[in-house]
Amino acid sequence: MSRPKVVIIGAGFGGLEAARALRKTDADITVIDRHNHHTFQPLLYQVATAVISPADIAWPVRSILRRQQNASVVLGAIQSIDTNARVVHADTISLPYDYLVIATGVTHSYFGHDGWQNAAPGLKTLTDATKIRSRVLLSFERAELAQDEADRKRLLTFVIVGGGPTGVEMAGAIAEIARQTLRFDFRHIDPRTARILLIEAGPRILPAFPEELSAYAEKSLRKMGVEIMTSTMVTDVRRDGVSLGENRIDSEAIVWAAGVKASPAAEWLGAEADRAGRIKVNGDLSVPGHPEIFAVGDTATLASPIPGIAPAAKQMGKYAGTVIAARIADAGASTPPAFAYKHAGDLATIGRKSAVVKLNKLKLTGFIGWLFWSVAHIYFLIGIRNRLTVAMTWLWGYVTYQRGARLITRDDRPGH
Amino acid sequence: MSRPKVVIIGAGFGGLEAARALRKTDADITVIDRHNHHTFQPLLYQVATAVISPADIAWPVRSILRRQQNASVVLGAIQSIDTNARVVHADTISLPYDYLVIATGVTHSYFGHDGWQNAAPGLKTLTDATKIRSRVLLSFERAELAQDEADRKRLLTFVIVGGGPTGVEMAGAIAEIARQTLRFDFRHIDPRTARILLIEAGPRILPAFPEELSAYAEKSLRKMGVEIMTSTMVTDVRRDGVSLGENRIDSEAIVWAAGVKASPAAEWLGAEADRAGRIKVNGDLSVPGHPEIFAVGDTATLASPIPGIAPAAKQMGKYAGTVIAARIADAGASTPPAFAYKHAGDLATIGRKSAVVKLNKLKLTGFIGWLFWSVAHIYFLIGIRNRLTVAMTWLWGYVTYQRGARLITRDDRPGH
Repeated sequence: MSRPKVVIIGAGFGGLEAARALRKTDADITVIDRHNHHTFQPLLYQVATAVISPADIAWPVRSILRRQQNASVVLGAIQSIDTNARVVHADTISLPYDYLVIATGVTHSYFGHDGWQNAAPGLKTLTDATKIRSRVLLSFERAELAQDEADRKRLLTFVIVGGGPTGVEMAGAIAEIARQTLRFDFRHIDPRTARILLIEAGPRILPAFPEELSAYAEKSLRKMGVEIMTSTMVTDVRRDGVSLGENRIDSEAIVWAAGVKASPAAEWLGAEADRAGRIKVNGDLSVPGHPEIFAVGDTATLASPIPGIAPAAKQMGKYAGTVIAARIADAGASTPPAFAYKHAGDLATIGRKSAVVKLNKLKLTGFIGWLFWSVAHIYFLIGIRNRLTVAMTWLWGYVTYQRGARLITRDDRPGH
Repeated sequence: MSRPKVVIIGAGFGGLEAARALRKTDADITVIDRHNHHTFQPLLYQVATAVISPADIAWPVRSILRRQQNASVVLGAIQSIDTNARVVHADTISLPYDYLVIATGVTHSYFGHDGWQNAAPGLKTLTDATKIRSRVLLSFERAELAQDEADRKRLLTFVIVGGGPTGVEMAGAIAEIARQTLRFDFRHIDPRTARILLIEAGPRILPAFPEELSAYAEKSLRKMGVEIMTSTMVTDVRRDGVSLGENRIDSEAIVWAAGVKASPAAEWLGAEADRAGRIKVNGDLSVPGHPEIFAVGDTATLASPIPGIAPAAKQMGKYAGTVIAARIADAGASTPPAFAYKHAGDLATIGRKSAVVKLNKLKLTGFIGWLFWSVAHIYFLIGIRNRLTVAMTWLWGYVTYQRGARLITRDDRPGH
């Protein structure tokens, strides 16, 4: 009998855990991703705010799996899946499979307003992050040269839409750039006069956290000079500003942190999905009608909601890999117990030395929260070198208020 | 009397030294550059070969000049210079000047074959470096998926045109990637079979070095598996290969390190230039007929040739700044002694622990040369953080053979 073929689509947290769970099986595993690197998404906002470099939070998928001899890696974008013939068709190759794991994550959702994307980029890939970095830095550069007060004011206004952890982290980081990093760098503007707005449709920021932590984060951000508007809907987004009903705010640096939707995996399979495009999976994470296909992480939805965070994707990937490994070892293996998510906690950082952390009954805020957050993130970063580089960069930034990755590399200037 | 205005075009080694030499004067200095960062060009090849990140060798111009209160920084690209009205016109602003320093450096020259540029990018900016990095890494990815032997062979062939220091450094670094870094990462190809060609039109590589050091570099590169073709002219470059007269070499990863030409500064001024576009300046680096305009670094040429390296640009920038400072202090200042270049030496690194160094009578090769080269480059890197990061990255790479910046970030794949 030939070795069973397992194809894993996506080299994020879920896909890599699935591959690892299969490392001792007799399967031939192929991990396919449209990027050559795994991205540590929890720190993307630090790339977007010029703290660290893209390579500090990215690692070649090949390098991660180099020692797992039953795994090979393919660079390619999925075009379709033939579930009858059991073949994945990518732009670079076609891959037959006996088992398939879909771990393709999410992209931004503009709630039907796809035209807003160019004006308000989201933050899901390294390309997104460097684009936002360029826009933020460029706003200060252009404000320095502005000829009239209205231009200057618009260019020194930064709007973050969405008050979840990403929005909170972006708002805090941009406030620090304006108030501290750039403080002495300009001659015609005072970067400390920049206006930073965090807009949230719900009644409070960080809705997934306990109310007291939301309140703490709000108070901390206000102290840093961030204006927070809750219960406020963005009704229009243009390249030069946002509308909040009648109210217009002029800005050319708008960041979208308000919503996500799943990749088109449900369409590839013709499977049933929820409103956000996530596949409704069985208790064992298999796709209904396809016991050989699993969906994990943000691509899947279960009866009880699971947060779209790295630990959840890892748990689901590991579970799916283990179920497949058991079936490969024994075709008649009994049905495994349904996947059960264990929530470890919630973390969000607010600024240079402040974070909010919720772990079971433990709640941490301020500097202690920030220390916990830093250690946790460095611990989970893949690769010893990146851990050291990021730790050193943070220490250096903490001491000097400087940022080491202030690069405008994209031709994002108007007219260029 | 109002303060004299000095405009410096270009924030490379020459421009920054000119600004520094003017720090104690009563002048208002404006440094304008089309990038927001100074690039440490001597290490660009390490970005192109995935050793370090762009931000490791780039530093915001504002940050460098933040403490020099008489200097301001403008992001903008020059469109024209009105030498009668004494105004520099950029896309973002117009800047009047009393003194002008032009330090705009060089770009690649394809000797009249501008169509070769897309097929064989040169290495002068961070964008060039990340483009080359993507092409090199992508070639291995595509070779892994190649369906026939001819494709595989073409994708595993790397061609470097030009045997000066940049060409030698690129060839050595690509050889290391193929032979060591990627050694265990693929399942269908053996990266060690990659063919790396270094093509030089002249009779030997590193023509600026003493013959014995050229011979040493050639021997070292051959030992690393680089094929060296001297006295060989490239007659055509296409996206899928190069022609050497009758001989064709199939490759999709071609790097141009063969020639440079000056920026269009001579055209802006209507000044006399040599064949490479460099302005023929007076002994005091001023432009003939314009005692208020100076050209420094690769933008200028003198009767006795000066190499296009960082120390030369720095010396010229400092000289021009000093001459302007003397004239500002005393309008009737006597003519300064003509600029005299002091050549400190030549350095080129060959690989992981080998370099050739020529300092006056001292010649160093091998590991001692590499140590000297490393210390010299780290010393000159601007900014303490970058020095530490680069030093740590090199140490880590030296121990593990790994490379930390293996990112394919540009959509450089065929059909993307």
